[in-house]
Amino acid sequence: MKYFNASHISELEKIYCINLINSCTGYKSANLIATRSKDGITNIGIFSSVIHLGSNPPLLGFILRPTTVPRNTFDNLTKTGVFTVNHIHKNGIEDAHHTSAKYDGDISEFDKTQFEPDYKDGFFAPYIGKAKISMGCNYVNHYDIKENGCLLIIGSIEHLYIAEGILEDDGFLNLEKAETVAINGLDGYALPQLLARFEYARPKK
Amino acid sequence: MKYFNASHISELEKIYCINLINSCTGYKSANLIATRSKDGITNIGIFSSVIHLGSNPPLLGFILRPTTVPRNTFDNLTKTGVFTVNHIHKNGIEDAHHTSAKYDGDISEFDKTQFEPDYKDGFFAPYIGKAKISMGCNYVNHYDIKENGCLLIIGSIEHLYIAEGILEDDGFLNLEKAETVAINGLDGYALPQLLARFEYARPKK
Repeated sequence: MKYFNASHISELEKIYCINLINSCTGYKSANLIATRSKDGITNIGIFSSVIHLGSNPPLLGFILRPTTVPRNTFDNLTKTGVFTVNHIHKNGIEDAHHTSAKYDGDISEFDKTQFEPDYKDGFFAPYIGKAKISMGCNYVNHYDIKENGCLLIIGSIEHLYIAEGILEDDGFLNLEKAETVAINGLDGYALPQLLARFEYARPKK
Repeated sequence: MKYFNASHISELEKIYCINLINSCTGYKSANLIATRSKDGITNIGIFSSVIHLGSNPPLLGFILRPTTVPRNTFDNLTKTGVFTVNHIHKNGIEDAHHTSAKYDGDISEFDKTQFEPDYKDGFFAPYIGKAKISMGCNYVNHYDIKENGCLLIIGSIEHLYIAEGILEDDGFLNLEKAETVAINGLDGYALPQLLARFEYARPKK
């Protein structure tokens, strides 16, 4: 058994530390968040922190690290009020990872990757073309996490698009069929296979 | 392409809606959070919302739904100041899912599953025996998400235990080797395989 306590962790070399602590909470969702500035400059950022917050109303959240992540995403979504969340699939992991490169704000990641902007139903922010599951969201609120200066962004799901063959009869989206990936740590991309679904759990007598 | 807007979503049958909206943000982490009351009654809850919040200091977060989840976890961790986070592995998914059954507060999920409490290094909360990656955490703070009454709980990682064969030379935890699972929706358990790791992304010239 390997063991680290908080004191050990604080003394680790920086890259080792971020690899370790980014891996230890388990798999993370893999999404591209796309926005457009009022000037029309599009932006894509990769986020491994998108989480489900509630179904009624349908809300999601994600974490922004203000000090290390370029602020284009935050600036655009607060100024325009909208953003899109798009799954990352097996065939797009290399370009998705590349959107984490720090480009200047006047350069669009759409011009530096294979991804094509897809405008749907009059929504101001672009979707990622060919994403099999995409959401158009309104910016709702954000919370300052005072412990480390992170922001928790809250968005409402206003539009949900799902490619054929993924939505099952009970509303479940079979992410294996979508070839949606999960993120391991900072830079690992993994493809899950569904093992089982279980019924609503009830106490044993 | 299937399409739902916010108005469609609000009119969906309840179970269909929660299956859909719990699936659409992508894969979720799969962890068991274990606590112990001041009276010594242990508790396990399954959480798909544990997220990485920062490496320095090492912080994680998770979402509690006060109105639908029994409050044992929250009561115990705020009163005792500690909890453990334990990965769910392929061979434990059925029992892990069962911890979501609503037992009364005086019944321990350790008595209703194969999981054994494991006390380490004097930490008050039990770890899940045989978990390959476990963390002992201090409760730090919580934030009220006023949009839907959820709580974001913040914990600091004080102890980190990793079984042999998972930790790589650069601090990366290979979750495939741990057979850690990911959660799809409310009730789907998936086993990921690592496709690739990529280098730190730098802008293309």
